[in-house]
Amino acid sequence: MIPRRKHNASSGSLPPPDDKHASNDYILSDGGARDGWRAALRRRFNRKTLHKRIPITSWLPQYNAEKAIGDVIAGITVGLTVIPQSLAYSNIAGLPPQYGLYGSFFGCFIYILLGGCRAVPAGPTAIASLLTWQVAGGVIEKAILLNFLTGLVELLMGVLGLGFLINFVSGPVSSGFTSAVALMIATSQVKDMFAISVTGTTFLQQWISIFRNIHNASLWDPVLGFVCIALLLSMRKIGMIKLGEKSAEGPSTRQKVLTKCMWLLGTCRNAIVVVVTGVLGFWFVATHGTSPVRLMADNAPDGAIPSGVPIPQLPPFGYVRADNSTADFLDMVSELGSGLLVIPLIVLLEDIAICKAFSDGRTIDATQEMIALGVANVGNSFMQAYPGGGSLARSVVSNGSGVKTTFSGLYTGVMVILALQFFTQYFEFIPKAALAAVIISAILFMVEYDVIKPMWRAKKLDLIPGVGTFVLCLTLPIELGILTGVVVNIIFILYHAARPKFSVEMLKTEQGVEYLMITPDRCLMFPSVDYVRRLVTKCATSSSVPVVIECTHIYSADYTAAKSIEQLTADFHARQQPLYFYNVKPSVCSIFEAVAKPEHFVVFYEDDELDRLLAADERLAPRKQPPPLQA
Amino acid sequence: MIPRRKHNASSGSLPPPDDKHASNDYILSDGGARDGWRAALRRRFNRKTLHKRIPITSWLPQYNAEKAIGDVIAGITVGLTVIPQSLAYSNIAGLPPQYGLYGSFFGCFIYILLGGCRAVPAGPTAIASLLTWQVAGGVIEKAILLNFLTGLVELLMGVLGLGFLINFVSGPVSSGFTSAVALMIATSQVKDMFAISVTGTTFLQQWISIFRNIHNASLWDPVLGFVCIALLLSMRKIGMIKLGEKSAEGPSTRQKVLTKCMWLLGTCRNAIVVVVTGVLGFWFVATHGTSPVRLMADNAPDGAIPSGVPIPQLPPFGYVRADNSTADFLDMVSELGSGLLVIPLIVLLEDIAICKAFSDGRTIDATQEMIALGVANVGNSFMQAYPGGGSLARSVVSNGSGVKTTFSGLYTGVMVILALQFFTQYFEFIPKAALAAVIISAILFMVEYDVIKPMWRAKKLDLIPGVGTFVLCLTLPIELGILTGVVVNIIFILYHAARPKFSVEMLKTEQGVEYLMITPDRCLMFPSVDYVRRLVTKCATSSSVPVVIECTHIYSADYTAAKSIEQLTADFHARQQPLYFYNVKPSVCSIFEAVAKPEHFVVFYEDDELDRLLAADERLAPRKQPPPLQA
Repeated sequence: MIPRRKHNASSGSLPPPDDKHASNDYILSDGGARDGWRAALRRRFNRKTLHKRIPITSWLPQYNAEKAIGDVIAGITVGLTVIPQSLAYSNIAGLPPQYGLYGSFFGCFIYILLGGCRAVPAGPTAIASLLTWQVAGGVIEKAILLNFLTGLVELLMGVLGLGFLINFVSGPVSSGFTSAVALMIATSQVKDMFAISVTGTTFLQQWISIFRNIHNASLWDPVLGFVCIALLLSMRKIGMIKLGEKSAEGPSTRQKVLTKCMWLLGTCRNAIVVVVTGVLGFWFVATHGTSPVRLMADNAPDGAIPSGVPIPQLPPFGYVRADNSTADFLDMVSELGSGLLVIPLIVLLEDIAICKAFSDGRTIDATQEMIALGVANVGNSFMQAYPGGGSLARSVVSNGSGVKTTFSGLYTGVMVILALQFFTQYFEFIPKAALAAVIISAILFMVEYDVIKPMWRAKKLDLIPGVGTFVLCLTLPIELGILTGVVVNIIFILYHAARPKFSVEMLKTEQGVEYLMITPDRCLMFPSVDYVRRLVTKCATSSSVPVVIECTHIYSADYTAAKSIEQLTADFHARQQPLYFYNVKPSVCSIFEAVAKPEHFVVFYEDDELDRLLAADERLAPRKQPPPLQA
Repeated sequence: MIPRRKHNASSGSLPPPDDKHASNDYILSDGGARDGWRAALRRRFNRKTLHKRIPITSWLPQYNAEKAIGDVIAGITVGLTVIPQSLAYSNIAGLPPQYGLYGSFFGCFIYILLGGCRAVPAGPTAIASLLTWQVAGGVIEKAILLNFLTGLVELLMGVLGLGFLINFVSGPVSSGFTSAVALMIATSQVKDMFAISVTGTTFLQQWISIFRNIHNASLWDPVLGFVCIALLLSMRKIGMIKLGEKSAEGPSTRQKVLTKCMWLLGTCRNAIVVVVTGVLGFWFVATHGTSPVRLMADNAPDGAIPSGVPIPQLPPFGYVRADNSTADFLDMVSELGSGLLVIPLIVLLEDIAICKAFSDGRTIDATQEMIALGVANVGNSFMQAYPGGGSLARSVVSNGSGVKTTFSGLYTGVMVILALQFFTQYFEFIPKAALAAVIISAILFMVEYDVIKPMWRAKKLDLIPGVGTFVLCLTLPIELGILTGVVVNIIFILYHAARPKFSVEMLKTEQGVEYLMITPDRCLMFPSVDYVRRLVTKCATSSSVPVVIECTHIYSADYTAAKSIEQLTADFHARQQPLYFYNVKPSVCSIFEAVAKPEHFVVFYEDDELDRLLAADERLAPRKQPPPLQA
């Protein structure tokens, strides 16, 4: 009477004759961790694992001239983006400008060997810079140690397979967090745009401070800043124009060249603005001895940015505080506190999101990304850099420039080294307002207001963690904000686990015996079992017909569920009402059978079994009906 | 080709002709909270709600002589258990003996009106006493205020419908907690058994202290204690004997009377031991002026237990500390701390577990239990009692004595009042070791070692939260122990949500086109979506046949899942591999459609649709096979 779902004999029962992957019905269990240590060891040490763990071994043998050209172009273009970006981000992190550059070359070289995603040049990122500022408070030693420990935590997470933790940050929470961070970063740049001093750590405090101090603003800093923003946004727009696309015969060669030039203008806009305003600053200082706008030299401790590549050295395991007391390693760790977990998680979250966006349909090996980023961060910490990772802005440029492999990182790194070696004395003349403009005009596109509409259409409830995380990140300390968002979202899942849905049907067997069929739609785990028992009892006591619980969708159960099923069967037994279980999965059945009394727990799998069970049940004898005439 | 699961026309399609509850196919959604305020208000104020919220209104009209007799017998028998128990439990709570009795009458009267479970006489419990000692530290004012606030929190939880929180304490965690508490309570009585002083708060610390001080033990206290335990256990055993049950004609009248007498002996064993040893203590004091064993009088501040029913008064909102400083209400609340949440939750947990055990198959209204216990606790706090609730020991006696309604609480309460009024001066002569024996011989049966075997057989993984909670409750502060157990168990659910299982089948349409059918077994929520995308991509890229994702079991999805499905469809589109979704539930489909591009997201519901889709797909043209010969 109840047909079991099965596949048509003409397809399912015949094994496919010519398929190499033939496997008629197998279950992919997670991890497959049950096939013993020996197999696990063998799996860990073979060629496939080598390709997986040191990805360069898989792509280097196929490296050719065409790929090399793509990588050279992409590497140099990214270099032109990375240099101004790094100078600006170190400002967000509250560190002297050269520290951004220190984190932009060695990590790239490591990533060539270990990285799995060609479009991710490792380096300073806006979010990591903001978090570094919040955690290390602009103390260079703490920022470097933080980078070292961040790398170790990432590595550890990769080795221990803790990557699944990132899955608990849902899309809405991630969007809310990114948007809030973007607004906070933009806010942090306002002080440089107006040349005022701003106090406070949260978004609100900073804006209050800005409105209080805005009357102290200089004239030329904001003028230069807004002109730069206007220029940057226009160049960005120009870079997106594609000439002749709409004409029937496609773009002509001239149009193609012009499009390419405009794309280059758009891509190098940051470098152009920084170079032009830097020349302007140099000219003012050379001719007037001073500049009407504040320059980068103000950020450097002695007014000069030291030149040269840093000498590799161990990260500092102690430092001298402002009050001349010394902090040892443990003091530093306790001062860094929860940042040691938050920064690795956030960096990985951002990095893996970018990898996914540029995966071209291949799967992303999150574990490998963690290992690569971990080693890159540890390596960078030896170059006195602060934490970084993959940044969306660089990846977009890299991908747009036709990157082929992670080898492009070599050219980016070499450009940064050249900049450090030969150009640092010129960086001092870059106006601070121009760098602020670079950050603001890039970061505003990270505010993901465009996800609200699809979220509203898809699932309105998801707006709660999304908007909640956004608001909380702006008002609370940022790590508390995202943590609350994650917890709220986990509560959704728990509520979901606690409140299964049921379909209830009054049916008749072919013998004409009525019965109630109750179908729960998901697994039975401890938060839901009482609810299930209560609902089944409610449905069952409203009539006295036999009850069948359809267990097709119950793919899993636990001890608490089994206890509840035992109580349920005992209740039905006490009420003299028959209760049967239909189509219980073997794994679930063995759990129930371990606890319930066998004479109360009756399972059937075929429809005609129900007829026989009902016919045999003497409890039904007084009200059993004769078979209907038409049967 | 793939038959959709549906019910046979001879049963499902015909509405049952004579069934009042006829409802051919309805879904019970949780709460049904969507039908407007007006309906909700109407639901709140009608006769059914009155019966639900003031249960006495439903059973009092049907009250008759037979029920009254059952209630009288049960009420008096419970009274004989409650009085010695209350004296002993107040010792666990670190309070003078009369405070246990103060909590054993007014709450019973309130529970008559509001209580939903006839076998639950509210009063002091072992677990609540231990927690009260841990939270209030033996300060009377704090214990009473704790009771008041516990009642308010319970009431609030009832009104706000927070009862579902209790569902997150699974069977294993609850068993581990109860067992650990039983051992801790037994440990707390060792000092009275041996008349030694014991320091330390955790289980381990206390046993270390016991072994250090055991050489100070007096001779007669442990002798009396162990004799009492032996007597109590024997009487318990005797009370369980049923004479003549095995003979063919059933027990004779004489055997029945004898069985009843033995049952009475077993039930009143605590009262018997307390009365006999009390008379012994009185005799010693009367004849020798002192007693070889320590008596209850030592517990009372001035050597005498005050007699009389307490005068109702507001709970104390301030008290004078041992160092003569005064603590006001807020000081007290902050000193009680997390106990204000832990105690209500634990009391409710215990109470509702007992209600379920004696429900006789009816559903338990957890909300009503919360309200009843909340009001009872608030009421008790006006009688200067400390927190209590339902206790398993009393419920077993009550049920065994043939209780019919909650009205039996009246007789229990009256007996306690009589004891307070006329017998308190005699309580002073009860030996402390005898009361310790009463507690130990009862509490040891709360160690649930017998759940380990079924748990092992049902689901070995559930032993982790169970044993973990047990060990942690013994080693950590008790509320941290149970919290860790709950969190570990929640992690199981989250892992479960993050790692769905798949079945993968290579099938052929009737046209002979091969396709891969992937069936995930549960909902798509954010923790699992990346895993799903990775697995589907892995399966799909290993061959290039079209892929069908069977969504029958996907009963729910969220925005993050929709984003992932969009990426998945875009990936397949980029790879030129067809991807179809089969049998997507409408609610899930609308979520996916809100995000995915419609030309990539193809859904079908009927088998022949797949044939048409595959035939129309030009991407398959080069490798489409001719229909096999036998078709």
